[in-house]
Amino acid sequence: MNELIDSMMSRKSVRVFLDKAVEEEKKALLIEAARRAPTAGNLMLYSIIDVTDQELKEKLAISCDHQPFIAKAPIVLIFLADPNRLWDLYRAGQVPESCNESGEAFIQKPALSDLMLASCDAMAAAQNVVIAAQSLGLGSCYIGDIMEQIEEHREMLGLPSSVFPLTMLVIGYPTEAASRRKQTDRYPLWAMTFENHYKSLTPKELATMTGKEDIKKEALRIYKKKTGADFSFEMRRSVKKGLMPFTETP
Amino acid sequence: MNELIDSMMSRKSVRVFLDKAVEEEKKALLIEAARRAPTAGNLMLYSIIDVTDQELKEKLAISCDHQPFIAKAPIVLIFLADPNRLWDLYRAGQVPESCNESGEAFIQKPALSDLMLASCDAMAAAQNVVIAAQSLGLGSCYIGDIMEQIEEHREMLGLPSSVFPLTMLVIGYPTEAASRRKQTDRYPLWAMTFENHYKSLTPKELATMTGKEDIKKEALRIYKKKTGADFSFEMRRSVKKGLMPFTETP
Repeated sequence: MNELIDSMMSRKSVRVFLDKAVEEEKKALLIEAARRAPTAGNLMLYSIIDVTDQELKEKLAISCDHQPFIAKAPIVLIFLADPNRLWDLYRAGQVPESCNESGEAFIQKPALSDLMLASCDAMAAAQNVVIAAQSLGLGSCYIGDIMEQIEEHREMLGLPSSVFPLTMLVIGYPTEAASRRKQTDRYPLWAMTFENHYKSLTPKELATMTGKEDIKKEALRIYKKKTGADFSFEMRRSVKKGLMPFTETP
Repeated sequence: MNELIDSMMSRKSVRVFLDKAVEEEKKALLIEAARRAPTAGNLMLYSIIDVTDQELKEKLAISCDHQPFIAKAPIVLIFLADPNRLWDLYRAGQVPESCNESGEAFIQKPALSDLMLASCDAMAAAQNVVIAAQSLGLGSCYIGDIMEQIEEHREMLGLPSSVFPLTMLVIGYPTEAASRRKQTDRYPLWAMTFENHYKSLTPKELATMTGKEDIKKEALRIYKKKTGADFSFEMRRSVKKGLMPFTETP
């Protein structure tokens, strides 16, 4: 083990922050850490919105499934899967014309594959920020609910149709209690890592995996809290709509 | 700055490895680092396939856009966006029946939103591995081409239809030359990070962003090497098909 891996092992989400600003130099380091993250083909298919406007934070606290702690976070960063800039570059560089000259058809719009690569880029950058934040004594929490309410978020953040808000990070100094909070458990390794071939688990293995006596109760608990909850219905609707510019590309 | 962030800043992809096995303890640490990565709602919607079979590595070296170095990597990890296990758990726990009793309709299949959350989980885990690897003196490279050839990859890895191979990491000890290789540049911060509101760049800003004199030449260079290249056409086809189980869910 080493110090970094130790720190990864002890990481947990922080949702309660001290009423203390994060130093500008630290914030700049976080953004630099994002910028140096790996990116597919060095295309940098992501952008970050740094939410500094308190009113906007308060709107996001409501639109992202009513989580007031979002408004209290010193740093709020939205990670956008963003093929838009690359296509803007193609158009500015008159690629369509050049390609027509050589007889090759220009790909007019980003496709679902571009969106997936862009999502990988955005997440690599976000996870760099999470780890860098921890090394600076800061806590963080991902807010996947930024994928909900797509119409409102597009409007609020001025997002073109080929830009998708994938995830959001709230960051700040953790309170004593937030630091002491117990880590959430993970399923055992054998349930998640397979050698050479995927393995669907048997009902018995799934029960063992949860570590709970009553698999029926545990499965229903998760379902009601997550997949079957209101926010999930909204997320399903919103993502389907938000990704239409990509799914409808031939 | 601190040591960790220093290390992030100097990270680069490594594609040439020493002919030297990676210690089992180090490999175990990498997998543990993945397992402790943040995961949306603690649902752990991802799995890892640890490719140890040399024949399989060689097949992947061909199917992933003909990159022979894949077969020479001591460690090959495939990160799957995997909502399948959760739905297996719901079925094993008889959630459909329980939900019908309470008059609530069970969500039969994962949707595109579940796939997006799963992709975020898979990438957070993968990026933890990248950073942990570097701290152990190991180099790594993402292979997005695992999203291509979906039919072949499903067959090769035994993937159910609601499991999507999102990315792959090859890992090993870097050669001296691979360590010395120059880092790739990134676009300037102002082109990628915006305050409170997205900003589409003007043609002039896009030209400045690239840092090249001739934006037409640069845009065409990128287009021909990436979006307009054969592998991109295949990726578009493959991802569209691979995500159909999610995009076709109501």
